[in-house]
Amino acid sequence: MPTPHLHFSAFVMNTTSHILQGLWRRPDAGQTDFNSLEHWVALAKVLERGRFDFIFFADVVGLYGDYGGSYEKYVQAGLQIPSNDPSVIASAIAYNTTDLGIAITSSVIQDHPFNFARKISTLDHATNGRIAWNIVTSALENAARNFGYDGLEEHDERYRWADEYVDVTYKLWEGSWDDGALLQDRARGLHGDFAKIHKINHVGKRYRVEGPHLVAPSPQRTPILFQAGSSTAGRDFAARHAEAQFIISPGPEQARDLIEDTRRRVVATGRKRDDLKFFQGLHFVIGSTEEEARRKEIELDEAIDLDGMVAHLSGAVGVDFGGHDLDAPLGDIGNTDGTRSIVEWVQESVSRRAGAQRPGESPGRAATVRDLGLLQGRNSRVVGTPESIADQLQRWRDAGVDGINVVNATIPGSYVEFVEHVIPVLQDRGLAQREYAPGSTRAKLFGTDLINERHPAAQYRGAFS
Amino acid sequence: MPTPHLHFSAFVMNTTSHILQGLWRRPDAGQTDFNSLEHWVALAKVLERGRFDFIFFADVVGLYGDYGGSYEKYVQAGLQIPSNDPSVIASAIAYNTTDLGIAITSSVIQDHPFNFARKISTLDHATNGRIAWNIVTSALENAARNFGYDGLEEHDERYRWADEYVDVTYKLWEGSWDDGALLQDRARGLHGDFAKIHKINHVGKRYRVEGPHLVAPSPQRTPILFQAGSSTAGRDFAARHAEAQFIISPGPEQARDLIEDTRRRVVATGRKRDDLKFFQGLHFVIGSTEEEARRKEIELDEAIDLDGMVAHLSGAVGVDFGGHDLDAPLGDIGNTDGTRSIVEWVQESVSRRAGAQRPGESPGRAATVRDLGLLQGRNSRVVGTPESIADQLQRWRDAGVDGINVVNATIPGSYVEFVEHVIPVLQDRGLAQREYAPGSTRAKLFGTDLINERHPAAQYRGAFS
Repeated sequence: MPTPHLHFSAFVMNTTSHILQGLWRRPDAGQTDFNSLEHWVALAKVLERGRFDFIFFADVVGLYGDYGGSYEKYVQAGLQIPSNDPSVIASAIAYNTTDLGIAITSSVIQDHPFNFARKISTLDHATNGRIAWNIVTSALENAARNFGYDGLEEHDERYRWADEYVDVTYKLWEGSWDDGALLQDRARGLHGDFAKIHKINHVGKRYRVEGPHLVAPSPQRTPILFQAGSSTAGRDFAARHAEAQFIISPGPEQARDLIEDTRRRVVATGRKRDDLKFFQGLHFVIGSTEEEARRKEIELDEAIDLDGMVAHLSGAVGVDFGGHDLDAPLGDIGNTDGTRSIVEWVQESVSRRAGAQRPGESPGRAATVRDLGLLQGRNSRVVGTPESIADQLQRWRDAGVDGINVVNATIPGSYVEFVEHVIPVLQDRGLAQREYAPGSTRAKLFGTDLINERHPAAQYRGAFS
Repeated sequence: MPTPHLHFSAFVMNTTSHILQGLWRRPDAGQTDFNSLEHWVALAKVLERGRFDFIFFADVVGLYGDYGGSYEKYVQAGLQIPSNDPSVIASAIAYNTTDLGIAITSSVIQDHPFNFARKISTLDHATNGRIAWNIVTSALENAARNFGYDGLEEHDERYRWADEYVDVTYKLWEGSWDDGALLQDRARGLHGDFAKIHKINHVGKRYRVEGPHLVAPSPQRTPILFQAGSSTAGRDFAARHAEAQFIISPGPEQARDLIEDTRRRVVATGRKRDDLKFFQGLHFVIGSTEEEARRKEIELDEAIDLDGMVAHLSGAVGVDFGGHDLDAPLGDIGNTDGTRSIVEWVQESVSRRAGAQRPGESPGRAATVRDLGLLQGRNSRVVGTPESIADQLQRWRDAGVDGINVVNATIPGSYVEFVEHVIPVLQDRGLAQREYAPGSTRAKLFGTDLINERHPAAQYRGAFS
């Protein structure tokens, strides 16, 4: 059942430069302290003060594809390298908070599902049921080569791999231990009920796992499942498995189309429309007046490392736009299948939007590398006073978006500002929660601790008895 | 260089029943709360008050071998099932302590070395250099079958596997990032120095790992390395790789022989005698008088689940002594190669020691399953007043033991008692430290943050430049 208000999540990564490249160079940017627990605990406390539902850790387990022929730019920009493990800092965050959900990205490539399921169950106990898992397949060639593969599997095969991976974890989380298996009965000297703890004997294409699961049922058993793929295979995977999908739509109308399409797929799998919630990624430029907001936006644009933005896009889509001057015309760089749609997107935007022009330039000029960087930096940006931001968020809510994954310019600054200035206005309008609902993170979002009976994980309840 | 005092470590596991089986049934036993972070943080604070060097987490990633034909006994006794992941609770412990080292057991079977190295480096940053790794190969068939193997590799092959595994991690920890690679230079906009961050391109029998390592050099780079094998292959592995070895010798003289043998192997590899420290596992029964101590020992013996002790031994050595009455003669159970040495050990002890006899029994009687359980429970036990315990620990120290891994009967009770009553006496005698040395755990134990140049990990410094 959808709540009237939006959910909020902080979109972060255990690194210096996650989405908005170059901002770490600002003197007030604390994200360079990512190695320290204090940095993350302090942020978590800010988020909990603002009644955020999640701190959401993105992750990569390898370098992005070469930019200008190497990974030099990524290193210089701190662009997701270093990339620290988010899962091992979660318990420090949990110990210092009470209600904030902690979402961890983990790829099927990096951890064996038996080990991963154990880690997640341990954390779900340790957090009293506040763990979420963002399921990813990893699209980085270097990541594959870090784990002994020659390279990436083909795209749809990666989702078949993920299908088996989650299947193993569902068996462990939902089927291996029946309710009431952990007794801890001192008087009878019975710690567990043998009849209620089962091996799973999974045999599949990639995995053979005997079991039993090594951890007793945690508050949520299966953690809240996030997913982020927007391809057809990605939408189908989300429709089958995800309870929350992370999207980055250019605007509410496009989000509405994507959400409607995915919800249809959800229903086609036998689940209900609202079994999947959608979180839109947005970053905010907040002013006490519209003028101040516009001024701060100019400052933000100037602080962004445009070359870094292009590098991130290059690495993510697997097309090397690097090694060129920022003023080089994009059309000259390449006209391959991979680049064409991107070049056309930038050229259209340059031709259409005065915002992408610089003083003295004509509307018909050729799009440059700089334009690409600017567009990337302005992607999913919301600018204004708290009141006008609330208006804009209402439009996202009306389009069917359930939550906002708040991208940062600085940590903790972006979140402090959002919590202090925007959240109170949203709360006054009923667009943000004033208090947490009780219980586990799934109870807060969906009303029950356990994943519902329409989800494929539920088929394994009692399956091994 | 050896310190005059002993080091102290708490030998625990993220489970209910670790070594002394059955004690969890006592009303004052808190170890049933292992799922909770508060339980572990509270214990860590006790240990730090007592200036312990480590909290040492043992671990298994599967069931012990069948006992009486199944894993029923293990479940009923809470005997290392559940077995929660220790690595994900470390940061909560670290955040609430300042000096305690955190040693985590992880098997080569459970985690890919690229993922593991990243996890450890992240934790070493998060703890300001307080992480140790207990390297294990896993000797449990069920663990192998949880990770897709048909069964265990042969014993010596497991150590060859471990050799390659640690080699990959050394390359990542020591060679991938040169000193000074992380700049975070805001003025120049240079986050990292590309010339100092290298791929490792490891190609071996089991692993291919491209790199670079994803985490910048942590305070210790390579964590403190623990190892526990006592076989010839195990001693040789420890001699090459370990900085601390966990041993369980029946007494100081046997410890002296083992330590001397292993130190000779250490020197043979080009390292120095004192590059490896030895931690003896012991549990303590503490009384304000000798009489009180003896009385508490009888209570302890009565609280121990003897069948559980036999089950643990059975599972660990891979011989099923289960399914028999406690009064069944051991000699009737089996006389296979696996059981013979154990049966002889118990029979000798029964014939020799009045302590293993029960009222009305003759010295020449046949040893029973009960005797085996009692002997296991009394293994490595130290009984007495704080002063006599200090005398006994002095003998262990004189035999060359560097530290004590303190086994518990109850958590936190056993450690509270030891810290309040024994540690002050040891401190007065110079046998325990009064204050922590500054810096990382390796700096506290060995005087330097980084592993020394005689260790095989050091060969990779600058190796990929």
